[in-house]
Amino acid sequence: MVAEPNNWGRFGAEDQRGTLNLLTPRTVLAALGSARRGEVLSLSMPIRGATSSPAPTTVPHLRGRPLPQHFMSVDGADYEAGTRAIGAGLRMADDAIIVTHHGTTTHMDALCHMWAGDSLYNGHPAARVRSYGATRCGIEHVGGIVARGVLFDVPRHLGLPHLPAGFRIDGELLAEIARVGPGDVAVVRTGWPAVWERSREEYWSGQPGLSADGGRWLARHDVAMVACDNAAIGGLNADQLADEGLDDDLHLILLWRHGVHLAEMLWLEDLSEAGVSDFLFIAAPLRIEGGTGSPITPLAVL
Amino acid sequence: MVAEPNNWGRFGAEDQRGTLNLLTPRTVLAALGSARRGEVLSLSMPIRGATSSPAPTTVPHLRGRPLPQHFMSVDGADYEAGTRAIGAGLRMADDAIIVTHHGTTTHMDALCHMWAGDSLYNGHPAARVRSYGATRCGIEHVGGIVARGVLFDVPRHLGLPHLPAGFRIDGELLAEIARVGPGDVAVVRTGWPAVWERSREEYWSGQPGLSADGGRWLARHDVAMVACDNAAIGGLNADQLADEGLDDDLHLILLWRHGVHLAEMLWLEDLSEAGVSDFLFIAAPLRIEGGTGSPITPLAVL
Amino acid sequence: MVAEPNNWGRFGAEDQRGTLNLLTPRTVLAALGSARRGEVLSLSMPIRGATSSPAPTTVPHLRGRPLPQHFMSVDGADYEAGTRAIGAGLRMADDAIIVTHHGTTTHMDALCHMWAGDSLYNGHPAARVRSYGATRCGIEHVGGIVARGVLFDVPRHLGLPHLPAGFRIDGELLAEIARVGPGDVAVVRTGWPAVWERSREEYWSGQPGLSADGGRWLARHDVAMVACDNAAIGGLNADQLADEGLDDDLHLILLWRHGVHLAEMLWLEDLSEAGVSDFLFIAAPLRIEGGTGSPITPLAVL
Amino acid sequence: MVAEPNNWGRFGAEDQRGTLNLLTPRTVLAALGSARRGEVLSLSMPIRGATSSPAPTTVPHLRGRPLPQHFMSVDGADYEAGTRAIGAGLRMADDAIIVTHHGTTTHMDALCHMWAGDSLYNGHPAARVRSYGATRCGIEHVGGIVARGVLFDVPRHLGLPHLPAGFRIDGELLAEIARVGPGDVAVVRTGWPAVWERSREEYWSGQPGLSADGGRWLARHDVAMVACDNAAIGGLNADQLADEGLDDDLHLILLWRHGVHLAEMLWLEDLSEAGVSDFLFIAAPLRIEGGTGSPITPLAVL
Repeated sequence: MVAEPNNWGRFGAEDQRGTLNLLTPRTVLAALGSARRGEVLSLSMPIRGATSSPAPTTVPHLRGRPLPQHFMSVDGADYEAGTRAIGAGLRMADDAIIVTHHGTTTHMDALCHMWAGDSLYNGHPAARVRSYGATRCGIEHVGGIVARGVLFDVPRHLGLPHLPAGFRIDGELLAEIARVGPGDVAVVRTGWPAVWERSREEYWSGQPGLSADGGRWLARHDVAMVACDNAAIGGLNADQLADEGLDDDLHLILLWRHGVHLAEMLWLEDLSEAGVSDFLFIAAPLRIEGGTGSPITPLAVL
Repeated sequence: MVAEPNNWGRFGAEDQRGTLNLLTPRTVLAALGSARRGEVLSLSMPIRGATSSPAPTTVPHLRGRPLPQHFMSVDGADYEAGTRAIGAGLRMADDAIIVTHHGTTTHMDALCHMWAGDSLYNGHPAARVRSYGATRCGIEHVGGIVARGVLFDVPRHLGLPHLPAGFRIDGELLAEIARVGPGDVAVVRTGWPAVWERSREEYWSGQPGLSADGGRWLARHDVAMVACDNAAIGGLNADQLADEGLDDDLHLILLWRHGVHLAEMLWLEDLSEAGVSDFLFIAAPLRIEGGTGSPITPLAVL
Repeated sequence: MVAEPNNWGRFGAEDQRGTLNLLTPRTVLAALGSARRGEVLSLSMPIRGATSSPAPTTVPHLRGRPLPQHFMSVDGADYEAGTRAIGAGLRMADDAIIVTHHGTTTHMDALCHMWAGDSLYNGHPAARVRSYGATRCGIEHVGGIVARGVLFDVPRHLGLPHLPAGFRIDGELLAEIARVGPGDVAVVRTGWPAVWERSREEYWSGQPGLSADGGRWLARHDVAMVACDNAAIGGLNADQLADEGLDDDLHLILLWRHGVHLAEMLWLEDLSEAGVSDFLFIAAPLRIEGGTGSPITPLAVL
Repeated sequence: MVAEPNNWGRFGAEDQRGTLNLLTPRTVLAALGSARRGEVLSLSMPIRGATSSPAPTTVPHLRGRPLPQHFMSVDGADYEAGTRAIGAGLRMADDAIIVTHHGTTTHMDALCHMWAGDSLYNGHPAARVRSYGATRCGIEHVGGIVARGVLFDVPRHLGLPHLPAGFRIDGELLAEIARVGPGDVAVVRTGWPAVWERSREEYWSGQPGLSADGGRWLARHDVAMVACDNAAIGGLNADQLADEGLDDDLHLILLWRHGVHLAEMLWLEDLSEAGVSDFLFIAAPLRIEGGTGSPITPLAVL
């Protein structure tokens, strides 16, 4: 079946990695230096998947998306009820997950996730994205991201607990908050997930996000990736849709035109508390061949 | 639903993290220093999930396990066939995955994955591991692992392309190969995945792995975690089972008695080629609440 | 693996079929005679499973339940986009479904679905219902149901389009509407699914259903099965829960104490229009070993 | 969302039902008369879905297909281990299934399942079969099948326990065994599933089935449907593929050119034992909108 040695340890095709090509041994070593305290934070929300309880609905998500499901195929309760141990007494728990990551959990978008017309980023034919997966620009090309993360803590800069739903972050505001350069990961906080705890209806009433100008500003500064705590990088209206036209759509600006990978629905509240402006940012998406993205647990090493 | 502020950025309960508690700001900073070249390698095998093709069977896995499934719920071919774009012309691909990670892909085990008797690691009641997940020792307690990785490249040390199926790695042999200390991640290569390319029947005929003595040696050296390219840390016989009794079972020695997290089915061939003995090791499992583990893409930064 | 000839054509253990044992060759032949016109009606709602569209939410269901998912693993659009045909030109579409039937679609309950204390119906130990399925009273014991159906069209009897949410149907009212005897299937219409078209919020505001007295009346008349167009046989309050105590819970009265199988979320609007009082009722649940029930397409042959 | 009253009780579009249109009130009433004893047999194999045991592999299936998965999301063992009952003491078991029916279990094919060129049966555009399902010729158009079943018990006719793998059943042989007419369901037994009990390798070594001539003979006799105990109506070679060219492919002859629905992987051993030549045949596929087929439990009423 496999004719020649695999080199799975290496990342995917360069022409399908977009601005991740900005990450070089030099930037990686520099990024490691941006960790000063040795403190590791998780930037993900939990994946709660109980099928016969309302648990999955207690984590911020877009309305109407199929939420994660998590099943135990054998567990401790089974042994309690009489299931025989394996061999001389070994007991094990096993499980399965079903995840539709966009809109339901902390995840990263592959370059094949969005486009206009007939071509993906870099001219790859969109017709190559088929039922058995994308044979162009799938998430398996990402490999691992080890980069300097730069926090744009917009509500903190403005003295707000979180941005209001209609707020759009432009380049001028970003420029006020932090400096970002080639190969950095721009981590943009809106604070919106905290609204969930108060009211999920309010959470669904719209979302703050980058404006087209903000997106272009980041692309112009050659960031390797944009990671945000909202659900769509750009803002959303009450129908959970972007208001921008095609020219100004944030996914098209970043993902499609500039090859900038995106990560959404990060948990940035603890990072905000930590009060650092840059840090080591790490993300390692599952290597789903042909995937449109992957659930991830991004890490910040302060 | 959520009564008080979440602090999801912080990791889980200390008494459910086992030897990961050895990872401190000091070890994290030291680990960052073990990356010298700035080269990032992926240590995972691909997740191939096409349901109507034999693709999933082309990646090494234990016989009989349900393989990953990957579904596109909308894709480029749909637009080609006439599906209307969103709004003014936005097109998107969306997908879902079903993963049963043990035995099918590169993954990490939670401390709730195996035990004997009625208690998990650290005395947590096994009866807490139920159909809706483990409320003790689930994978969500892991957070992110940033540590020094130490490669035990056993076949290279012995001048073999891979260990034979019946080979068991003991402490003496490990001691010959590398030095490992508190908070390090021991990355043990058997070379067995390369057998898959030659013959999957041979791959299934047994697997080399650590002996009980090898496992105890690692535990005694206070490693934070053991990661291996075989399917079960210890060896397997032709029935895909461990031959050891309860006292000597590798999962019980490491995971259960010492709280050492395990990662299995890593892809270490490229790392072996790279010829380094230590490096920065990173793993960030999905934060599946109550999960018995998670598929992961571990990274080595050389 | 299989030691002796299977007799899968025969149904499951008699002591796990409850009142379905009332179905005998004699009742089956009599039931066939209750079809007079030769018209076949479906009594099921559609299973809509599109993951990246809101389609699944357009079919009546209980709030918060995971809705069906339906995935194509290869389809016509793929060929349109360039996928090669099989062999000389054969093209095929293939798919997969994920269904959690309770509360989401027309389904039948197995006798293991609900109980109180430590025993299922007929004293079977509840501890036998484990993560890998129920080894007692699973849906595979049902086989096929071929019986006389008797329609209790309660709103039509009362001159209402549908019953109000708080309405509970007692035995006296049932007795006014139709006569039912041993081995019959009581098909009880509330009309509630029609509310869905007007407002899903109203649909979720509660549900009409049988009262405990109504349930006991049906059990006393030795029906083989009760099938209803509401979600829980009994009524539901605004929290989607039953208001009755344990003694009066409809599932416990029928399923647990009397072994009466239940079917829920049927579509009875067309049957109501047809204006017949009895007919041939057929249901053939999927033979899911150890299942708590099965999605079904019940048929009425008028 | 739903603008006008649904009439879900009625079946799908006539031009997408193929020869099922032969089923009229007259044939339905006649079919009911073909049941003489009142004995009901199931014609399905069990769906075994335990994920952490080899149970699913013990039921006949095509090699390499993803087998059914069945998960309990709450079960009796959980209560045994301490899960709190609902309200005053109600306990429930809930579950989910994942099924890819083609090649894994008893199922029925929709008219959209196979074709050649750009059109499905009856000229419907194949491009309408997309990732979110088939908007032409999906399984939801079938409704319920109530028809006279005619058993072609080929091995019994030939005095064999089962047909050999290479055997192809032609029209002359069918004509010797039974007479079939417009609107009948031809139930063709090869006996091949019984081979599974002896050796799954032998089961996978090929399969007997109808020859192209046999398929044309059935189409010429205007059967409403063909149901078989093999996996593909026609025979299979050792690669699990049909040997026929496009002209002679059984799916194309029956499903595509003549609109004859197909059911595969039935369990006919007990029906064979029963020694009847015709009977009432019933099938009621799940109403999966846009589905390429459905798992079913077909019934024979003798």
